[in-house]
Amino acid sequence: MSDNGSQEFDLLILGSGSGGYAAALRGAELGLNVGLIEKAELGGTCLHRGCIPTKTLLHAAEVADAAKDAESFGVKASFDGIDMAGVNKFKTDVITRNYKGLQGLVKSRGVTFIAGAGKLTGTDTIEVTGDDGTATYTGKNIVLATGSYSKSLPGLEIGGRVITSEQALQLDYVPERVAVLGGGVIGVEFASVWKSFGADVTIIEALPHLAPLEDEAVSKTLERAFRKRKINSHVGVRFKSVEQDDNGVKVSLEDGKTVEADLLLVAVGRGPVTGDLGYEEAGITMDRGFVITDERLHTGVGNIYAVGDIVPGLQLAHRGFGQGIFVAEEIAGLKPAPIDETGIPRVTYCEPEITSVGLSEKQAKEKFGDDSVESLEYGLGGNGKSVILKTNGFVKLVREKDGPVVGVHAIGARMSEQAGESQLIVNWEAFPEEVAQLIHAHPTQTEAMGEANLALAGKPLHFHA
Amino acid sequence: MSDNGSQEFDLLILGSGSGGYAAALRGAELGLNVGLIEKAELGGTCLHRGCIPTKTLLHAAEVADAAKDAESFGVKASFDGIDMAGVNKFKTDVITRNYKGLQGLVKSRGVTFIAGAGKLTGTDTIEVTGDDGTATYTGKNIVLATGSYSKSLPGLEIGGRVITSEQALQLDYVPERVAVLGGGVIGVEFASVWKSFGADVTIIEALPHLAPLEDEAVSKTLERAFRKRKINSHVGVRFKSVEQDDNGVKVSLEDGKTVEADLLLVAVGRGPVTGDLGYEEAGITMDRGFVITDERLHTGVGNIYAVGDIVPGLQLAHRGFGQGIFVAEEIAGLKPAPIDETGIPRVTYCEPEITSVGLSEKQAKEKFGDDSVESLEYGLGGNGKSVILKTNGFVKLVREKDGPVVGVHAIGARMSEQAGESQLIVNWEAFPEEVAQLIHAHPTQTEAMGEANLALAGKPLHFHA
Repeated sequence: MSDNGSQEFDLLILGSGSGGYAAALRGAELGLNVGLIEKAELGGTCLHRGCIPTKTLLHAAEVADAAKDAESFGVKASFDGIDMAGVNKFKTDVITRNYKGLQGLVKSRGVTFIAGAGKLTGTDTIEVTGDDGTATYTGKNIVLATGSYSKSLPGLEIGGRVITSEQALQLDYVPERVAVLGGGVIGVEFASVWKSFGADVTIIEALPHLAPLEDEAVSKTLERAFRKRKINSHVGVRFKSVEQDDNGVKVSLEDGKTVEADLLLVAVGRGPVTGDLGYEEAGITMDRGFVITDERLHTGVGNIYAVGDIVPGLQLAHRGFGQGIFVAEEIAGLKPAPIDETGIPRVTYCEPEITSVGLSEKQAKEKFGDDSVESLEYGLGGNGKSVILKTNGFVKLVREKDGPVVGVHAIGARMSEQAGESQLIVNWEAFPEEVAQLIHAHPTQTEAMGEANLALAGKPLHFHA
Repeated sequence: MSDNGSQEFDLLILGSGSGGYAAALRGAELGLNVGLIEKAELGGTCLHRGCIPTKTLLHAAEVADAAKDAESFGVKASFDGIDMAGVNKFKTDVITRNYKGLQGLVKSRGVTFIAGAGKLTGTDTIEVTGDDGTATYTGKNIVLATGSYSKSLPGLEIGGRVITSEQALQLDYVPERVAVLGGGVIGVEFASVWKSFGADVTIIEALPHLAPLEDEAVSKTLERAFRKRKINSHVGVRFKSVEQDDNGVKVSLEDGKTVEADLLLVAVGRGPVTGDLGYEEAGITMDRGFVITDERLHTGVGNIYAVGDIVPGLQLAHRGFGQGIFVAEEIAGLKPAPIDETGIPRVTYCEPEITSVGLSEKQAKEKFGDDSVESLEYGLGGNGKSVILKTNGFVKLVREKDGPVVGVHAIGARMSEQAGESQLIVNWEAFPEEVAQLIHAHPTQTEAMGEANLALAGKPLHFHA
């Protein structure tokens, strides 16, 4: 266990994932003496077992698709399969580079990294058990940032051919047939990768749509795109059971159908890592394993805050960053403005990619009333760059009638990058008329954002009504 | 010549490129009776001989590079060369699709398309000579939108192996060696394409840098990237002469060096198409071939306006769109706000791509004073998605001290799509502190925009000082 100096910190953080390390870095910048406790590796799920490795696989998948489709662009190329050792080396190289960068940041900003498994033992103390034994650290302020794990369903045991995303990221082969339980972000991302890698993929989703938390128009377009890619799916049907043997898995659904595959990926969401960590004993309010906080992320106990996936809401790395920064500034007395969760962009990196910020059309109608909401879909068929990329999809805007844009939803190749402009529009409560006044660069995909705003502002340019 | 109805129009437009057809579409929306005169094809340079076809070549180049580099991502693929017939088919298909869409728009909005070569014969009349003879049309308002052509240098004749972008887009083979005269947007885009297609490329630029109109940090990074790609260049040296024979061209530079190649692409800018069109005779003020207007794009003569590449300023299709829309609204009495040219995004689609909006650091210092400007470069090495794409580059912000961001400059693979967020930031005069408050999606390239703003706001996250 490293112990560089004081056992007492201004800010003591349990967990060094996105939320924890962001709090540490910002706290150190603000002059706080920071201790950062981690039982595994600095960077947490996102860097080592989540966002970053999955996006390397997704990029390898994009390269594979480019090679397969090269001829249609006039490029003579052959696709000869996936070299999983090469994919995994690419993945490891990317993680390592980011990991080293992060280690350098933590060190250069003077954060004390404490290796070991921590447990809250009082309102200002954490006991840490590491290779060298156990030590107790105190913090004038404590931030709980213990993250999340891949959940399963009751009675569905992980093991053997039934895996979660952690194991899926470690595979050294491409399965021939794979079943994916869950059509949310993680499920559709892995389905997309494996299909591009050559597997036969079947998604099982209990809700009526893939990407069920997105605006329904997005979900339907994703389903159409996946059908075109020959990704199979069963939606609106619940998982019943799975059997496995040396040859594969047989998944039974409640409608009597079965899916046979080499592997079953269980992607039914992520649960908070909060068990046996002393949280309840300290008097912290818990709800189904989540830590309940006020809007300032305070737990209501002592000077204990919580950030990231253990706090109910969007389980996203960048929400963790934002919350970590917020808490550090709060502790330093900067009185930051609370984070508005509806303004946080959401991205699903499957092919086609999905970006959304703010309210779906349905949510907006629930909030403002059916007659007080306007929406518009701008099809990417009218967007030159998207035609060049041979992608379909749309940018959909939802506005309060005579009011600002309250939701942006986009689907299509590479649309993840539209998250930037989308979030400014929604968070700054821009009117379509204001965005429409700005001339978007031709020919980019961001032009579709401009055209959607032009059309919704009543002055359509390249728009087929 | 088509003649659907009246010979008299509320709005008569000479030239159906980006500026002209945007004015036509917007004018028709606003209830004006619109005539749109075109001697070649609806859509003009951008669609048929400019933006759109070059971006198809650039995308084919990206696909070729992906196939070449596939192994480093774990994808087994071979690159076996370029099939120019296939590239040209892809290009033609994209143009045709956009062309048909545009024809549909013009028709459905009731714009009268007039085929033929027009000439201004009075302050409200244009004489059009087409296949069926000559007819005269009158317009209560006239918009001149005759566009631009590829310029050459004095004494440098286009022909044979000395070509402009028009011929370069029609090549049915990949040259083995090609010289490019001009390191501006068009020059570096073609250099990038040909290099990816396998040619040996040499750029000749009289100014001290490639992409000489960009912030110097961008130019230097582009030069480094091009060196790494083994694109040769001679900068800061003027062209002297060229000789050609059956075997190739020999380009002589003023420093005594020579460049031998199969072809010389002349990419020294675009001149306005305004000769022999009756503009001077109508009393319009001209300057070196450009039409001079006030900030409301009025020529000062009758009800004659001008838009697009014939008006001094940025020669960009989307500026044309914006000006076309502006003029139609002006004529319809909507009193639109004048267009601020510094807020128009600029994109160069070579590999790596360049995006910029607003002032360079140098321009900002000239405007505000050396001590009143702050700038910050956020290297893409700290951006997870960019690391995955294996690209280098940066996002650079320029702000007025304690004031808003007045310039955004970005270079790196796919950075064209950062134009969207960049232009909102600059045009809405956002402070870095305001952008920094918003949590950018992880892992995207737009996150680099967020990180740059965080760092410039004094709260760096993933930033190595």
